[in-house]
Amino acid sequence: MRVRIVSTGGTILSRQGEKGLVPALDANETLAALAARFPEHDFSVETLMSLDSANIQPEQWGDIAAAAYEALGENDGVVILHGTDTMAYTSSALGFMLRGIRKPVTLTGSQMPAWSPFSDAQSNFATAMSAVLSGISGVTVSFGNKIINGVRATKLSTSDIEAFGSVNVPPVAEMTGLGIRITGGGVPVTPIMPGALEKDVCPDVFLLKLAPGVKPEIFEALLRMGYRGIVIESFGMGGVPCAGRSLTEGVSAAVRNGTPVAVCSQCPNGAADLSVYETGGRMLDAGAFSTGDMSTEAAVVKMMWALGRTSSLREIEEIFRTNFAGEITLPQ
Amino acid sequence: MRVRIVSTGGTILSRQGEKGLVPALDANETLAALAARFPEHDFSVETLMSLDSANIQPEQWGDIAAAAYEALGENDGVVILHGTDTMAYTSSALGFMLRGIRKPVTLTGSQMPAWSPFSDAQSNFATAMSAVLSGISGVTVSFGNKIINGVRATKLSTSDIEAFGSVNVPPVAEMTGLGIRITGGGVPVTPIMPGALEKDVCPDVFLLKLAPGVKPEIFEALLRMGYRGIVIESFGMGGVPCAGRSLTEGVSAAVRNGTPVAVCSQCPNGAADLSVYETGGRMLDAGAFSTGDMSTEAAVVKMMWALGRTSSLREIEEIFRTNFAGEITLPQ
Repeated sequence: MRVRIVSTGGTILSRQGEKGLVPALDANETLAALAARFPEHDFSVETLMSLDSANIQPEQWGDIAAAAYEALGENDGVVILHGTDTMAYTSSALGFMLRGIRKPVTLTGSQMPAWSPFSDAQSNFATAMSAVLSGISGVTVSFGNKIINGVRATKLSTSDIEAFGSVNVPPVAEMTGLGIRITGGGVPVTPIMPGALEKDVCPDVFLLKLAPGVKPEIFEALLRMGYRGIVIESFGMGGVPCAGRSLTEGVSAAVRNGTPVAVCSQCPNGAADLSVYETGGRMLDAGAFSTGDMSTEAAVVKMMWALGRTSSLREIEEIFRTNFAGEITLPQ
Repeated sequence: MRVRIVSTGGTILSRQGEKGLVPALDANETLAALAARFPEHDFSVETLMSLDSANIQPEQWGDIAAAAYEALGENDGVVILHGTDTMAYTSSALGFMLRGIRKPVTLTGSQMPAWSPFSDAQSNFATAMSAVLSGISGVTVSFGNKIINGVRATKLSTSDIEAFGSVNVPPVAEMTGLGIRITGGGVPVTPIMPGALEKDVCPDVFLLKLAPGVKPEIFEALLRMGYRGIVIESFGMGGVPCAGRSLTEGVSAAVRNGTPVAVCSQCPNGAADLSVYETGGRMLDAGAFSTGDMSTEAAVVKMMWALGRTSSLREIEEIFRTNFAGEITLPQ
């Protein structure tokens, strides 16, 4: 098989710098070691950028998506080397930007630099190769023993080798002693149209994680800063303060101003549902909508992607109610 | 035993309102049903407030702490009925406010109202009673089958009955078919001084959860809004953008302005450590410090509590390096 490696940096390509680890190693050299166990396949390497993924921003997502999309023409699959810190944001973005592709695009990296004899780089690369060789179509994260739909991935631990989890759905596949086991869960939706590159995003989306005491003036401040969309990471199922420092009026004012406000949960599992509690019901009255069982990462990125397509509140809410890449479990 | 029930509201005491569930039931009636299985104990009830916990704010924490502290004088333990949404924030606050107490104060509630025949209220109340009857000193959360140190609790799921987890340490105890099993892990620190009520907090602390693209101007906006402390929920181990939309200068300016900036992780497991990556190292240079393996809830509340005691940056950093209630695992 022909496999394109697109390198963006990350721990896997890091060496010790003056202030800590920095991505600075040559992807070709690192790959030569990683690919040595797969001599029958034909690898090519594109070094797109060399960034700690904390520094990868929405503008870079489009470049990565375009590089992967272009590579799919002449390759059977693409493995993207990426830092773990924001891998779940990038994989969510690629999930939307490359929705419907019929070939594997999988992100991997490592918790320890590839040069370390204890590194997880080799095993993660093997997981990624399993995704490619098994033809798991669409954008996935291959890490530890799991292959996860990109729009469902989340980083669960700062340091564990099994660092990623699949939010609210099973992983697409797991590595076992007998090889890859496809679970049948959590897969990207069956493509109903030819895969396409839709890479426009509006980066002006603020993620507001609630803590008790958050000031209602935050909404006015965010609008003044030029934010065009807000995702509230609420308490529980969608609880947003509506007494004391009530946020109801701030949300209502933002929506009246044409700014979409989506509500997700800060609980790592379970769905947001604004219809169960009064503290959620008031958000519906204020014009906000919930993100169902989407991950926070997917919710933020979907807002950026939706704003890249339209500024109509009605259309944005409709985009959130549509399942593009397996990011949301819709009522049957 | 004499047990005081302090009621603050929550799902456990909710009925269906016009816009969804609202806490409106009488705690005495609900308790009569819950306590019926413990006829040999002497219960008293104090209805302190009747709030959906999304509406509980830092000002209420002090009232709850004072009610519990006062009740400890003439009771063997206190069970606080509380909504699940912000229970982990309140339990963290009580952990600091009531550090060193030598009697049990445990928070419980339910994912389903107590009147439902399927409610988890009865079993959660039994878990709370196990904490009290076993004399597990200090502030804990009793929920599902776990008794968790209050400063380590986090709500893991919007809807699962086993809704809470213990961050980075084992639960203090677990319920089994043979009764309570004390694990020996995650316990509040041994009181080295008489328990005291220290309930002052400064509510002006902002929790900034990073998403790719966050604008550096946010720091100036937060200071203008009167925030006096900032907790950054960073990527991974402490990754904060230092290129593109770099946040380094904003953090540095906030610190120069006398505003403490603490860095925790948005990963639900593992510790923040700013010394490993360059993206963390630059935060140290800017004057920020990391919160180690504390939960985000405990980090935000500890910042509010620290600012309630002092406004000296040096003293606040020292407070963060001190283990008051088992909230942080310090290097041995």
